[in-house]
Amino acid sequence: MDKPNSFKIPNTKQKRIVIIGGGFAGITMAKKFAGQDVQVVLLDRHNYHTFQPLLYQVATAGLEPDSIAGPLRKLLENHKNIFFRMATVSRIDKEDSKVMSNVGELSFDYLIIAAGSKTNFFGQNEKFEKAFPLKQIPQALDFRSHILQNFEEAVLSSDEEKIERLMNIVIVGGGPTGVELAGALGELKKHVLPNDYPDLDFNRLNIYLVEGMDRLLGGMSEFADKKAQKYLKKFEVNVKLNTMVDSYDGEKVVFNNNETIPAATLLWGAGVMGNVIEGLSEQSVKNSRYKVDRYNLVEGTDNIYAVGDIALMETEDFPKGHPMLAPVAMQQGERLSKNILASLKGKEQKPFKYLDKGSMATVGRNKAVVDLPKNLHFGGFFAWFIWMFVHLISIVGFRNKIVILSNWIWNYFTYDRGTRLIIRPFVPKIKSQKDKT
Amino acid sequence: MDKPNSFKIPNTKQKRIVIIGGGFAGITMAKKFAGQDVQVVLLDRHNYHTFQPLLYQVATAGLEPDSIAGPLRKLLENHKNIFFRMATVSRIDKEDSKVMSNVGELSFDYLIIAAGSKTNFFGQNEKFEKAFPLKQIPQALDFRSHILQNFEEAVLSSDEEKIERLMNIVIVGGGPTGVELAGALGELKKHVLPNDYPDLDFNRLNIYLVEGMDRLLGGMSEFADKKAQKYLKKFEVNVKLNTMVDSYDGEKVVFNNNETIPAATLLWGAGVMGNVIEGLSEQSVKNSRYKVDRYNLVEGTDNIYAVGDIALMETEDFPKGHPMLAPVAMQQGERLSKNILASLKGKEQKPFKYLDKGSMATVGRNKAVVDLPKNLHFGGFFAWFIWMFVHLISIVGFRNKIVILSNWIWNYFTYDRGTRLIIRPFVPKIKSQKDKT
Repeated sequence: MDKPNSFKIPNTKQKRIVIIGGGFAGITMAKKFAGQDVQVVLLDRHNYHTFQPLLYQVATAGLEPDSIAGPLRKLLENHKNIFFRMATVSRIDKEDSKVMSNVGELSFDYLIIAAGSKTNFFGQNEKFEKAFPLKQIPQALDFRSHILQNFEEAVLSSDEEKIERLMNIVIVGGGPTGVELAGALGELKKHVLPNDYPDLDFNRLNIYLVEGMDRLLGGMSEFADKKAQKYLKKFEVNVKLNTMVDSYDGEKVVFNNNETIPAATLLWGAGVMGNVIEGLSEQSVKNSRYKVDRYNLVEGTDNIYAVGDIALMETEDFPKGHPMLAPVAMQQGERLSKNILASLKGKEQKPFKYLDKGSMATVGRNKAVVDLPKNLHFGGFFAWFIWMFVHLISIVGFRNKIVILSNWIWNYFTYDRGTRLIIRPFVPKIKSQKDKT
Repeated sequence: MDKPNSFKIPNTKQKRIVIIGGGFAGITMAKKFAGQDVQVVLLDRHNYHTFQPLLYQVATAGLEPDSIAGPLRKLLENHKNIFFRMATVSRIDKEDSKVMSNVGELSFDYLIIAAGSKTNFFGQNEKFEKAFPLKQIPQALDFRSHILQNFEEAVLSSDEEKIERLMNIVIVGGGPTGVELAGALGELKKHVLPNDYPDLDFNRLNIYLVEGMDRLLGGMSEFADKKAQKYLKKFEVNVKLNTMVDSYDGEKVVFNNNETIPAATLLWGAGVMGNVIEGLSEQSVKNSRYKVDRYNLVEGTDNIYAVGDIALMETEDFPKGHPMLAPVAMQQGERLSKNILASLKGKEQKPFKYLDKGSMATVGRNKAVVDLPKNLHFGGFFAWFIWMFVHLISIVGFRNKIVILSNWIWNYFTYDRGTRLIIRPFVPKIKSQKDKT
């Protein structure tokens, strides 16, 4: 056996395509390759696919974590040419065409890097150690536990400064994540939490949404920005534009204008960067993404591709690369899988072209903004309905669709959130003098 | 303010009743006291009530954790005389009528200890450090992640000994927990896992159920025992009676007959003990439970009560105390709250009498056993249906009922389990020589 293979994948005559990452791009491709005359090995460090657009609803107790995740093995069931292995790839060896991982090595004929993105603290990770990222399910769960735990602490405290700190939530980044999370928290403040905590004055709960630019939802229309700001105002979210965060120590947020806010919670939604893996040449990486041509081939390689968030495809329409969005990942995945199958049959490959079907964001109950191509924009209840419909049909698995729909109906009519559980040990973190008995 | 109170509970003229624990007894009482002329403070270390009878379904990926938990604040909403505080009580001070906790002190007029039970390793905790208990939601989640992770490791391994170890699951204790868990695992083995892991031979998955006595379901009829054994056989569970476990190091189970089995998973369901709290006299505690009279008053006290699992009420019918079951806890809670309210009005109190409505256990799909009073016993599909009905009406909250019913219907007709997620970091624990590349 000359090919390295500690993954117990059968060595066949089929070309082996290794896909790193079971996100939107990865599962799109795995499904396309199913039943074709290729061998596909999908690697992921988790055993499930995460539907990231709804992470913020897990973080705000609106959905169970299980309902936005799809077990990868379930998704790939009944396809004999598709193999799943739970592994974290640590290095790519271009010369020998193999990947190294925490569970051994695996050779490939084609490698597709679909490793997605992670939170970007712009090189200041140590300054933001206490900030919450929101890219994975355990992070969403931890955020949920954290804010609920803070309210439990606030109920018990007589220290006014501490209560203020516990009741301030700062969200950094006015993109879809920040806006949707702020809206959902505004809804909790208005409709859910006051019933839960009669001893706590929720007028004291301040939700800040901080954005460096002079507008929200930078990737969307001006109409969407204006509407979102209006909606957030209704949910009593304090939007701070033209403002950046300098540092955060877990108790105090310092802004670039030297203003400070005491806050026990800071969520960082201000940027993402590609999960670049060691091994490929420095020239092939730019802004933490792999430089690819119109066929998603990584610069300087001939059998290594990158798709989705981690791919930097610079074109006339997108001189800074395509946006890091699920639709781009899915479309690139679809195009690339077709191209690989075509090339194996000696047929012509087609360059990728992004079809922008529009973008949208929701801002709490009954409120959303939608941008469609050709400058069509709208907001309000209808936009909110469209938003729900599109997310529901996009999420993987029939079971998840049912569960999420039922939860939404329940939450809507009862003004309730079912999943207000703190599932981590309760350790009051900062015990102030005044609280001692 | 002479009464110690760092919990920010208003000092009123009402008698203050402090309840430790939001289990079956605690929430029954809190609801009974709602709207009455008393002040009630419910303390729990979690912010949710756990419906323990269904924990095993969370552990076997059949239900989301959120669906068997009820946020305590939600349960107590809209009752101005009921306060919830998240706290862990560390000590009871009988002389000064106060409790000490991780968040300060609180005085009481009446104290009700409803702290429930925890896993009992019979003083050999260090010998069973690697065993899984199953009393709380995080434990059930961890068990679920653990077994799924073991299968992922087994897929990757070429070491036959390691694969055997990863594929052996030992359950200690033939009570309802052990029987129901073994049945659910048998169902997974038969209907779910082979589809998920086509590369793994699930004939190699061995489920052992180990019991020290010569029968299963000790608290139930002989009929129930025989039927359960028959059902477990159908699900290919190896039942080992008259056998005790001597030790477990995470890799190997040693039995009292010196037989050993390699096993990466051992679940301990062989016993529970009361969560006894420091402070009361040694004379009031026996077998890790508080000795109480027929009015649930703790021996040697005049305003401290114990109910449910933690109470040892020895009567003619129950010379060794009442069984540690949810119905006992609920009935004692109901009786005691009525008695306290009666005594406050100068009325007569009534001694507790347990009304045994029967007991039941399920053993996987379509199979259960039910014992009713007057020696009525039955099994099979009808028993299974009764089991589901009783559990569904017993669980707190309308939302949970709906979610669980939908999950059961889904699981039944699709032979699927929706929640096969590993939500903890994947670190292959024991890397064997043969697996190295």
